[in-house]
Amino acid sequence: MRVLGINLPYADEAVRNDLTAMAEKAGFEARFYDDATLKTEGAADCEVFFGKMPSSQLKSCAALKWFQCSFAGVDDYCDEALYPSPEVMLTNSAGAYGITISEHMVCSLLMMMRNMPKYGDMQKVRGWNRAGEMRSIYGSTIAVLGMGDIGSNFARRVKALGAYEVRGIRRVAHKGMPEGFDKVFATEDLDEALKGADVLGICLPATSETQHILDERRMALLNAGAYVLNVGRGSAIDQVALKKMLDCGHLAGAGIDVTVPEPLPQDDPLWEAQNLLLTPHVSGNMSLSHTRRFITDMFKENFALYLKGEPLKYLVDRKAGY
Amino acid sequence: MRVLGINLPYADEAVRNDLTAMAEKAGFEARFYDDATLKTEGAADCEVFFGKMPSSQLKSCAALKWFQCSFAGVDDYCDEALYPSPEVMLTNSAGAYGITISEHMVCSLLMMMRNMPKYGDMQKVRGWNRAGEMRSIYGSTIAVLGMGDIGSNFARRVKALGAYEVRGIRRVAHKGMPEGFDKVFATEDLDEALKGADVLGICLPATSETQHILDERRMALLNAGAYVLNVGRGSAIDQVALKKMLDCGHLAGAGIDVTVPEPLPQDDPLWEAQNLLLTPHVSGNMSLSHTRRFITDMFKENFALYLKGEPLKYLVDRKAGY
Repeated sequence: MRVLGINLPYADEAVRNDLTAMAEKAGFEARFYDDATLKTEGAADCEVFFGKMPSSQLKSCAALKWFQCSFAGVDDYCDEALYPSPEVMLTNSAGAYGITISEHMVCSLLMMMRNMPKYGDMQKVRGWNRAGEMRSIYGSTIAVLGMGDIGSNFARRVKALGAYEVRGIRRVAHKGMPEGFDKVFATEDLDEALKGADVLGICLPATSETQHILDERRMALLNAGAYVLNVGRGSAIDQVALKKMLDCGHLAGAGIDVTVPEPLPQDDPLWEAQNLLLTPHVSGNMSLSHTRRFITDMFKENFALYLKGEPLKYLVDRKAGY
Repeated sequence: MRVLGINLPYADEAVRNDLTAMAEKAGFEARFYDDATLKTEGAADCEVFFGKMPSSQLKSCAALKWFQCSFAGVDDYCDEALYPSPEVMLTNSAGAYGITISEHMVCSLLMMMRNMPKYGDMQKVRGWNRAGEMRSIYGSTIAVLGMGDIGSNFARRVKALGAYEVRGIRRVAHKGMPEGFDKVFATEDLDEALKGADVLGICLPATSETQHILDERRMALLNAGAYVLNVGRGSAIDQVALKKMLDCGHLAGAGIDVTVPEPLPQDDPLWEAQNLLLTPHVSGNMSLSHTRRFITDMFKENFALYLKGEPLKYLVDRKAGY
């Protein structure tokens, strides 16, 4: 019997029943794993696998034809040598995280603009004073580096909140103007896009091209008092330069959900940077029920295509790295 | 010479020159005060006054025909006995605060939904763990009590962020459906509007009708795990009931920018309520340059109407209290 392996930490009774029924209708056995059983039992006879699997285990999946991971960032899954065969298709769930991660970005940005960490400290001592100047998304010029699902969701949100100009930057500039963006730049014109920006939101995968794409020179191109957000991969930012530009005040704040490495070591100097808002890689938190629903729906949609032998959606280009 | 008195703490050279030119063109002298000079010199010969003036000083303004205050909440300015004559017109700047206060509301709501105060504590000890379940504006049912400038701006924002249903509640329900709202209720149907809501945002003036409009019984009508926001006047909420409903967990959080009294005394039990996000009446912070510009523009617009003898905008109904 053809086997569909599933490892979804959040799968409750309803999700399991739903996926089991879908599999049986197609002549598949749905086999549910957790992290521990996946490690001990292996998934050698799974033709399709959905959810989480350590990249080191892929090689042992002799029957594997298609792996749809439940996460978005596949930088650890792009080495061809990890796979039992180059024919194995890798798809991801990049489209499922745009809502929750873009809400995190809006939240972090407003918190920094409105001095909310200072008001949090004040509340602890029962103080009642103003904590200095405030800024606003309304009227701001906002650059969004990476125009995938997350970047597009963020752009639509800040535009709806009254941003003056939303600039998108992506590898290929000539794909039209998605909703929420006012201008689109190619990556080679990134410097131009940063000049005069009050906010830079980074939503990039980790690839050789995105490594330290935001370095000290580029931070200096942003407006004095600009804010930086990073929710993609920590490697996009030169963290030494980030601390320097925060401490000297050129950057008014940085909302960072991803670092190099993770967890950030307790003695890393970045912890001491001024006006840093650091969260431990939680912006795509799976506890949002709609995120979980999207992930399952995206797999079901793809499973139907797979059965028909049609091209899959969300296919990862392992050479490009996303 | 006719005198225009002005007391605007934020007025810089450009604003002063702008208002002086406007006044002179109309045959007025523009006289600038600060809080101290207004107290010592008085404003007895000002025909028009713009900005801040203690309510106790109104009576001494013998020549006063019109006072445009630079703030929104006029609960301390509605007693007819404060005025040298019942003919004195009072206008406010209620329309200038919608953007900044609605950004504060979105910020506070997302912070609570995403456990950001807990992540702030975690950052202080350089921790790296998940802080529990997250919620989302996307998909939420949100009730907005008060559909003036602030409530409408908040409604538009949460709708753009993907709220499932935005319900507005106002004194008169039959004025059409402003942008951002899906349903409108009259105040007498408030209970109906609260049932099934995940979020209640309160943007009300302080009047006898709004006193403790959110009491324990009505908090219980909200969904379990609901969030409450208050940016109008503290008197709208029964604070004893609020602490009780936060501590028992029926409310998952409350973002409160206004209290009774202000500042909230250091020994007030409300400080110890669970999941309270308290800010010291700063949501309308004047340091936002566009807020300042709006306030000045609204006055200039009204001054032109005044010169022509036409009805003023933003006129306060002192009997109604707003």
